[in-house]
Amino acid sequence: MATVAGREDDRTGQSTIDRLQALVAEDLRAVNRLIVDKMDSPVSLIPQLAGHIIASGGKRVRPILTLLAAKLCGYTGQRHVGLAASVEFIHTATLLHDDVVDESLLRRGNASANALFGNKPSVLVGDFLFSRAFQLMVADGSLKVLGILSEAAAVIAEGEVLQLITANDTTTSEESYLEVITAKTAKLFEAACRLGAIVAERPAVEEEALQAYGRNLGIDFQLVDDALDYSARQAVLGKAVGDDFREGKLTLPVILAYRRGSEEERSYWRRVLEDVDQSDGDLDRAIALLDRHGTVADTVERARHYGILARDALDLFPEGVEKTALAHLVDFCVSRAF
Amino acid sequence: MATVAGREDDRTGQSTIDRLQALVAEDLRAVNRLIVDKMDSPVSLIPQLAGHIIASGGKRVRPILTLLAAKLCGYTGQRHVGLAASVEFIHTATLLHDDVVDESLLRRGNASANALFGNKPSVLVGDFLFSRAFQLMVADGSLKVLGILSEAAAVIAEGEVLQLITANDTTTSEESYLEVITAKTAKLFEAACRLGAIVAERPAVEEEALQAYGRNLGIDFQLVDDALDYSARQAVLGKAVGDDFREGKLTLPVILAYRRGSEEERSYWRRVLEDVDQSDGDLDRAIALLDRHGTVADTVERARHYGILARDALDLFPEGVEKTALAHLVDFCVSRAF
Repeated sequence: MATVAGREDDRTGQSTIDRLQALVAEDLRAVNRLIVDKMDSPVSLIPQLAGHIIASGGKRVRPILTLLAAKLCGYTGQRHVGLAASVEFIHTATLLHDDVVDESLLRRGNASANALFGNKPSVLVGDFLFSRAFQLMVADGSLKVLGILSEAAAVIAEGEVLQLITANDTTTSEESYLEVITAKTAKLFEAACRLGAIVAERPAVEEEALQAYGRNLGIDFQLVDDALDYSARQAVLGKAVGDDFREGKLTLPVILAYRRGSEEERSYWRRVLEDVDQSDGDLDRAIALLDRHGTVADTVERARHYGILARDALDLFPEGVEKTALAHLVDFCVSRAF
Repeated sequence: MATVAGREDDRTGQSTIDRLQALVAEDLRAVNRLIVDKMDSPVSLIPQLAGHIIASGGKRVRPILTLLAAKLCGYTGQRHVGLAASVEFIHTATLLHDDVVDESLLRRGNASANALFGNKPSVLVGDFLFSRAFQLMVADGSLKVLGILSEAAAVIAEGEVLQLITANDTTTSEESYLEVITAKTAKLFEAACRLGAIVAERPAVEEEALQAYGRNLGIDFQLVDDALDYSARQAVLGKAVGDDFREGKLTLPVILAYRRGSEEERSYWRRVLEDVDQSDGDLDRAIALLDRHGTVADTVERARHYGILARDALDLFPEGVEKTALAHLVDFCVSRAF
């Protein structure tokens, strides 16, 4: 599976993202200009708060997907810029609400918007950005696009609610977990890629291929994220280890460890994740148990499987820099784990 | 100003709303069916929570406005039903997020969704309903409608953020206050009415007249609401008195009393609203101060002014039951204060 790109990556995988950003540099600058323009408001707290999260080191993976997918489909117009900004606004609104729901104090290594500005403006500015996303779609003028992104937004919210329900429930199945991450993460990846085929007016088979690429990449991405949350690699990437653990989130490494564990281990998991009765040493024990059962590695293996599906979905597109870049993005996702 | 309808009203004004609901009874049933249908989700917490707020005694004022405005314009199709449901979903999403932001424990005399289900699902189900509102608009298929409601949603969020900023600030001006209520309340009233002219494909002058009716009615409505929050009438209507006071919200009765007050009174207002340092007897003193300066009555007088503007905006429409009903709704708004 390892490719030249994968091996070239530095320890944080930054070079892959840099190269992707370089490939769509001009379009991405236009997207960033549009984002800054559309997050403005006479109510100055809105651009302050939105600017904090939008400027704080996001990799712009989702808008890059729209830009690259459009180029892969031979698109030469400008619609992809507005739609990429719309996708990023939906993502940002979701992040703001997520951080409120998760009571997160950190986002990308910086203070989260809710920690800095409070929960209340984070909820309301999320609503504002969500509305702006729809205004950008209306400006684009395609009911098909509006249908795709409004459905994606509803599915994301459903996924987030489902995640909330399965939190602290150690009986959560791998299937439920997959349902959650497909909805909360993969749906927007899928839509972001699909938009590329739509603006280029490509046939349904290509639209579906890009959807499949995006969906599988999104699942891959979230699986690796959830594996990293228990991995020392996370610290190298500048993020805290054990966030999911502290919130009692049932992610795949834990779901597998619970099922493979002894009755005594399961009772430990119930205490720390269901009762959220955690003290010093509990996170270390969790990591040791995941290690004993090899579940972080198995989660990454599952991710690799979805990565293969994502790469295969690109097969019907012509060779070229965009196709290579989208394939490298798959490698990048998994490479973050090492 | 008092009309037959106004005088006929029972003490809660319920008969006016009953008659309005009766006038669009069949359409309103269709709206309610659509609401129940579209709030459904395999994630059962979503219809549970959404059902709690949607079923809990809302008067459906905004969807009724869309239905009545469409009928006033002679519309005989079915588009107004879906759009009325969309308007109610936007309103409900806003209520869910408002209650989280305001930390309200009561809504329409019942436990609020956040009190019953927690803040987290309230935020996420709000997002879900907001997305559903857009899906309903997409099903309607008009980019103009999508533009109007996505802009309204952005303006509502701006108004809510502005309200948050002016909370606890006793120097808030009447102009800032008007800006907040025009955005957070009147904008959706305005859009709800405008949709009636749009589905009936009426000329711009009628669209604008219905917008003016809705906007002024919305300002009227919110002014009376804010007056009632300090009025014994509130208790008759089954709501708690002093919610705005406890939250340190700067509404017009207080804004006027602060400006008219002595230095000693202003120092009291700063303690209770800026520092939110409140103890027994403080609400009573607030009500006594508002009474001394006559600011609740003056707030209702301001409301009456906007009510007159709303009624006048109806002038160019032909006489008929719908026009009479919309005029009665204005009387109802002000009559709640007595």
